[in-house]
Amino acid sequence: MTVKIFGHKNPDTDTITSAIVTATIEKELGGDAKAYRLGEINKETEYALNYFNVEVPELLESVNDTDEVMLVDHNEFQQSADGIEQATITSVIDHHRVANFETDAPLYFRAEPVGCTATILNKIYKENNIEITKEMAGLMMSAIISDTLLLKSPTTTKQDEEALHELSTIADVNYETYGLDMLKAGASTKDKSAKTLITGDAKSFDMNDNHVRIAQVNVVDLEELFERKQELTEEMQKESNEENYDLFILVVTDILASDSRVIAIGENNTVIERAFDVALDDNEALLTGVVSRKKQVVPNIEKAFKSLYE
Amino acid sequence: MTVKIFGHKNPDTDTITSAIVTATIEKELGGDAKAYRLGEINKETEYALNYFNVEVPELLESVNDTDEVMLVDHNEFQQSADGIEQATITSVIDHHRVANFETDAPLYFRAEPVGCTATILNKIYKENNIEITKEMAGLMMSAIISDTLLLKSPTTTKQDEEALHELSTIADVNYETYGLDMLKAGASTKDKSAKTLITGDAKSFDMNDNHVRIAQVNVVDLEELFERKQELTEEMQKESNEENYDLFILVVTDILASDSRVIAIGENNTVIERAFDVALDDNEALLTGVVSRKKQVVPNIEKAFKSLYE
Repeated sequence: MTVKIFGHKNPDTDTITSAIVTATIEKELGGDAKAYRLGEINKETEYALNYFNVEVPELLESVNDTDEVMLVDHNEFQQSADGIEQATITSVIDHHRVANFETDAPLYFRAEPVGCTATILNKIYKENNIEITKEMAGLMMSAIISDTLLLKSPTTTKQDEEALHELSTIADVNYETYGLDMLKAGASTKDKSAKTLITGDAKSFDMNDNHVRIAQVNVVDLEELFERKQELTEEMQKESNEENYDLFILVVTDILASDSRVIAIGENNTVIERAFDVALDDNEALLTGVVSRKKQVVPNIEKAFKSLYE
Repeated sequence: MTVKIFGHKNPDTDTITSAIVTATIEKELGGDAKAYRLGEINKETEYALNYFNVEVPELLESVNDTDEVMLVDHNEFQQSADGIEQATITSVIDHHRVANFETDAPLYFRAEPVGCTATILNKIYKENNIEITKEMAGLMMSAIISDTLLLKSPTTTKQDEEALHELSTIADVNYETYGLDMLKAGASTKDKSAKTLITGDAKSFDMNDNHVRIAQVNVVDLEELFERKQELTEEMQKESNEENYDLFILVVTDILASDSRVIAIGENNTVIERAFDVALDDNEALLTGVVSRKKQVVPNIEKAFKSLYE
C-alpha cells in the first residue's frame, strides 16, 4: 500500500517540502510512499519549488480508514487531513508541541525541539546513510530559511544553523541571497485578498475550552498591510462568526525588523494584554521582538488563558 | 535543576530499569538527572535489581509546576505521576501508542513500535557512543525479557531480539536461563493478595468515553490463580465501584503456554466477545495465543467499542 505523507493544512514551505523529502527518503528505504498537500501552496513555497525544479504535490481532500499515513510538521488532528481519526498513522516527524493526537497502536513518533522539520530530516538522511540530492538539499534549505526567518527567529537552534550550512553546500546555493529572495517572494501582500491573508497561514488551538485561531502573515512592509486594517478586521469578524472562534488573532510579522503587530478579535481579546504585557488600542498592539507563533505567541497566550481560569 | 525521570504507575521491569538507565545516559551526556518509581516494585523487578546489584529508585509521590521531567515507557497522563499536567515535560522515550498526552511547548518525543523501551535506550547508547556497563546491560536485558516474555510475545521485533543478544553478551549472562528464573520469580501468585494481583500491573484507558481498566498477571500455573476466582471477582467488583470503571478486565497470561484467560466485570463486558470472537462463561473466557495487552488486548477492545458506537 502507498503510504500518504502530508504536512498541515494551510501549508507553508516546511510542510510542503518535508512531505516531498520524507516521501523521497521512504522510497530510498524501499517503501512505497507519496507526498500530498492539504491546500494551496503559498508564493514563497512556489518560489522554492520553481527554483529547484520540483513538482507541486497533489492535493489530498481527506483520508479514511483504508489509508496508511505519515504526518510531517504537525501532529494535532485539527491541523491535519479531514478523517485523520480514521486513518492508520504509521509515523510522525515533527518539531511542534504534542497535543490532540491519539493512535490505537504503537507508532514511530519523532518530535524534536528544533526550528524546522527539515533539520530532523537532514539527520534521518545521515542516520540511514542516504545521499542527499541537490534538489532535496535545496528544499530542506528553503524550509529552514522559512521557519527560522533566515536564522533570526528565537525558534532557531544550533542544529538548524548547522543543517542550513551543510545543505546550502550540497545545494551549491548562497543561502543568504537565495533566502532573502525567497522570503520576499512570499512577503508581498498587495495582490492578496483580506481572506487569503487571514487564512493563508492560520492554525486552530484549543486553550481552556476556548477555540483560538491564530493567523500569521510575514511582511517586509507593515504599513502596506495596516492601511487595510478595517477590511482585514471585517473579514476576521466574519470568519469568527462562521467558525465560532472565541478569539481570532492576526500576527503580522515584520521579517526584517523582527517585530510583530497583532490584531485581536473576540470577547476576551484582552488576554493578549495579559500575555504580552501590552495595551490593546483599537484591537491592535505591537509585540516587540515577537516573531514566532510557536515559541512566543502560542505559549504566552496559553499561559494567560490558564491564569484566567485559576 | 535535576530532571526527574520515571516510568508508569504500577511499575514493571521495563519501566523501572528504563528510568535508571535513562538517568545514567543523561548523566553521561552531562545532564543532571535522577530516576524515580511511582509505586512498589514487583518480585520480578526485585529479582533483576538484586541480580545486577542496582539500588531500587526512590518513590515519587507527585510532581508540580516547578518540576522538569522525562517520561519513559509511557506517555498517557492517567498512567503518569499525579500532577503531570503541571510539570514541564522535556522528553519522552516510549514504545506505546500515543494518547492523552499534551504539552504547551515543543519537546523531544521518541516513540518507536518496538517491544520494549530498553531496545530504544540501547540505540541511544550507540548513537551517542556511550559505553554500556555490565549493570546497565543487565537491566536493559531484563526489561526486554520481561516485555517480550523471552521473545515469545507478538510485540517482539527483530530489533528487540538483536538488542537482547547484544546486551546479554555485554552483561555476560545466558539470557535464557536467567530469563526463565526472572520470569518465574515474578509469576508466583500464592503469596499475593487478590488486591495486589488486580492492581499490580493495571492500566486505565479511555475508550469511547468508557473508563476501562485492564490488569495483567503473568503466571506459570493458571489453575493456582483460578482456584481464587471468586475472591478475585469480588475484589474487582469492589474496585470497579470505587473507581467507577465501566469495564474491568483481568488478563491472566500463561507465559509458558502463551495463552491468556480473562475475567471481565462490567455492564458491557460482552465487548470481550465481540473483540475476540469468544463466548463469556461466568464472566470468563480463554483467549488463545493472546499474551500482549498492548498489541492484542487493548487494540481489539478499542475496535470493538468503536464498532459499538458506529
